[in-house]
Amino acid sequence: MAGQSVLTPQSEDFPKWYQDVVAKAEMADNGPVRGTMVIRPYGYSIWERMQSEIDTRIKRAGAQNAYFPLFIPESYLSKEAAHVEGFSPELAVVTHAGGEELAEPIVVRPTSETVIGEFMAKWIQSYRDLPLLLNQWANVVRWELRPRLFLRSSEFLWQEGHTAHADAADASAYAMKIHLEVYNDFLEKVLAVPTYLGIKPPSERFAGATNTMTCEGMMRDGKALQMATSHELGQNFARAFDIYFQNEEGQAALCFTTSWGSSTRLVGGLIMAHGDDHGLVLPPHIAPIQAVVIAVRDAEDVNAACASLIATLGRADVRSSLDRGRGSFGRRVTDWEIKGVPVRIEVGPRDLAQGLVSIVRRDTGEKLAVPLNDVDTTVVSLLETMQEEMFVGARAFRDSRTRDVTTLEEAVEAAESGFARLAWDLVGEKGEARLKTEALTVRCLQRADGSIPADEREEGLIAIIAKSY
Amino acid sequence: MAGQSVLTPQSEDFPKWYQDVVAKAEMADNGPVRGTMVIRPYGYSIWERMQSEIDTRIKRAGAQNAYFPLFIPESYLSKEAAHVEGFSPELAVVTHAGGEELAEPIVVRPTSETVIGEFMAKWIQSYRDLPLLLNQWANVVRWELRPRLFLRSSEFLWQEGHTAHADAADASAYAMKIHLEVYNDFLEKVLAVPTYLGIKPPSERFAGATNTMTCEGMMRDGKALQMATSHELGQNFARAFDIYFQNEEGQAALCFTTSWGSSTRLVGGLIMAHGDDHGLVLPPHIAPIQAVVIAVRDAEDVNAACASLIATLGRADVRSSLDRGRGSFGRRVTDWEIKGVPVRIEVGPRDLAQGLVSIVRRDTGEKLAVPLNDVDTTVVSLLETMQEEMFVGARAFRDSRTRDVTTLEEAVEAAESGFARLAWDLVGEKGEARLKTEALTVRCLQRADGSIPADEREEGLIAIIAKSY
Repeated sequence: MAGQSVLTPQSEDFPKWYQDVVAKAEMADNGPVRGTMVIRPYGYSIWERMQSEIDTRIKRAGAQNAYFPLFIPESYLSKEAAHVEGFSPELAVVTHAGGEELAEPIVVRPTSETVIGEFMAKWIQSYRDLPLLLNQWANVVRWELRPRLFLRSSEFLWQEGHTAHADAADASAYAMKIHLEVYNDFLEKVLAVPTYLGIKPPSERFAGATNTMTCEGMMRDGKALQMATSHELGQNFARAFDIYFQNEEGQAALCFTTSWGSSTRLVGGLIMAHGDDHGLVLPPHIAPIQAVVIAVRDAEDVNAACASLIATLGRADVRSSLDRGRGSFGRRVTDWEIKGVPVRIEVGPRDLAQGLVSIVRRDTGEKLAVPLNDVDTTVVSLLETMQEEMFVGARAFRDSRTRDVTTLEEAVEAAESGFARLAWDLVGEKGEARLKTEALTVRCLQRADGSIPADEREEGLIAIIAKSY
Repeated sequence: MAGQSVLTPQSEDFPKWYQDVVAKAEMADNGPVRGTMVIRPYGYSIWERMQSEIDTRIKRAGAQNAYFPLFIPESYLSKEAAHVEGFSPELAVVTHAGGEELAEPIVVRPTSETVIGEFMAKWIQSYRDLPLLLNQWANVVRWELRPRLFLRSSEFLWQEGHTAHADAADASAYAMKIHLEVYNDFLEKVLAVPTYLGIKPPSERFAGATNTMTCEGMMRDGKALQMATSHELGQNFARAFDIYFQNEEGQAALCFTTSWGSSTRLVGGLIMAHGDDHGLVLPPHIAPIQAVVIAVRDAEDVNAACASLIATLGRADVRSSLDRGRGSFGRRVTDWEIKGVPVRIEVGPRDLAQGLVSIVRRDTGEKLAVPLNDVDTTVVSLLETMQEEMFVGARAFRDSRTRDVTTLEEAVEAAESGFARLAWDLVGEKGEARLKTEALTVRCLQRADGSIPADEREEGLIAIIAKSY
């Protein structure tokens, strides 16, 4: 880890550090149209792993994948009043197609509650068709004036789940299930990101929702990032799109719907939750390459040992990659550090003569001399240890930067470097307005024990206050 | 297989049969905007399996996934003359976004050669960066005046590969590798669809290509469907987007590029290549559900046997589903037939008393009485047999409907019910014009031995002539 960093240090300018990492780790580039993003192969391989882990959990929760159109008639958006008001300023509109001006303008989907609502109404007949549990992986467009790669882009990739239920309790329970068993489980076990779970205050709800649950992660600069949200939509969209079912008594009844999403923004969160001045630090469960075998020099015995290690690691189901000994060793190490590969296995002629290789942890920099024969078992157990320790470390960091406060003024001060916890009773609408003047928001409301309340009217709720992305 | 079909028979009206199957098997619906498509969960689960099989082969061929923006500046399209001419009539154009009129209109990508070319130019410095092998899974938009679900939709899902090479030979060899090892291998081994491989005549090439390879499948009505295409783009896009590299001699040289794609149209091809009057017939390797265990009646012993069979099949890695004995048995059988599930395992009290179940093949209708203990081994080997036999059967069907002819007039006659093979020398531009008046096209040019020629000027080429989708 010697040598000077090629990145702006986090403490000097965190946003610049983020830009540097995204560029130098070859994660993404800006697209030619304002706010769009090119996800490069390394960035995309991380997103692919995220998709696979989230998709498995979604299917386990019983939802099925489908695909709905990119284009939505403009009139659909207007059917739910709060929804159109929330999304209108961000829409991209197609006015010409096939060489002609269109009779009705088409919007590029900013989210799909409306078009999916239309088809739910068509497909649902009776209580036997409920719950209807759908998900789609898609791109959506929300025009961004201040875009930032992964965090806020005019086009982003995501999954959006949409479900319909016979009653409010079932809808609410399912949204909670997704929030805990899909999102929070993925964030904790795969990304090693601890979050504060809670509901958004009414002012921050999704446009058209009756309740929005969130997972708020803390980034290395102490700011909050909303990692995923799950919405109870009540009967708002069911009413707008006539999503009726015949209940067991034979009467027509309105459904209750939910929606829930997570996006390529998670890649930004992963970078900022774990990265350091040397680049990305990837938790082993999400790392596309878990171990890189580096030939210190391009020599025959070294190359043979490297090839054999790659084969051994493959048999142990470790995702590994070979770095042949060409070019400066120091430069290559720096590049692998920037890419955040969890484990480096350095194979040099001197160590090799003693039957040893060096294993270096990306997170702590700790270096071990390991006999060749023990590399697979050492790496397998080290990866699990690192996964666990990265989560524990991120939680300790978060907790150390979270302060219980008793006034709005203290909250403003605490939020300079992290999160403030203040009784929701002491905030209210007036408090929210005051926080906004300091560029702060109530990230979520939770019970004193950290659990998710049913609504914002419960007594004794705590507001988590922070700067955010 | 008794009882009357709920579908229009193929022989009566093939297009209507296709519509019926797509609707009744719950594959897809028309979207609200002209030509767009809603892919329902059953249709999408087939597409997901296609994606996974194709993606594995693409990665094996060395290409990496990435993601490029949906929106392309209108000016990009114009940089390659043939390209813009080919795609202009099909473009959807965004003129307003974020509440304002845009200074430059944006097109929704119809394909991504242009924007990817721009980034190849940025990323490629020297011969060491070549070949650059990229792929993306994405949606594209080509405005359709006569849309048909899966076959021609204004928005469709696909993968598009884009590669850059140091010379023409390397580009050409890689396009061929993709065509054979990704597309044709997938079509034969997974979809059980035999194809005629060849190149398009110049009049049918991709807009901007110097050579287009195709896989042409025969549908049950004798018409051709282009299942996938691979293009050599020469230096056309490299010139338009300045994709230069420094060669080993230190000089700047233009790259050669390729592109290749396959789309949700494959789902339409799968339906039409194997379907019969009772619905879909899915080859086991692509079937989301390979075996359905049907309780003939809702009785305790039947249910227990069904549950135990599902567990047994799961252990044998057979994708299976349980149909509890509710509702009419005949109606349920009809529904599973429409969905094309390869194997039905019917569990009834009478058979069960003798320790037997009935296993029915979807493709042939053949019924076997099988002892409970042998179900897993029987099903596993039956699925492999069916996969093989479906391919052999489709090939025999295709061959029986392919006729060698010696004049254009004979070709027109032969193409009434299938494909005609005519010497390319006897066709030429004038012949192509004549064929067009009969709604026929040259689907591909191949060598007499069925292999793919390097270009249309080779001697002794055969033109495959057919009606097409």
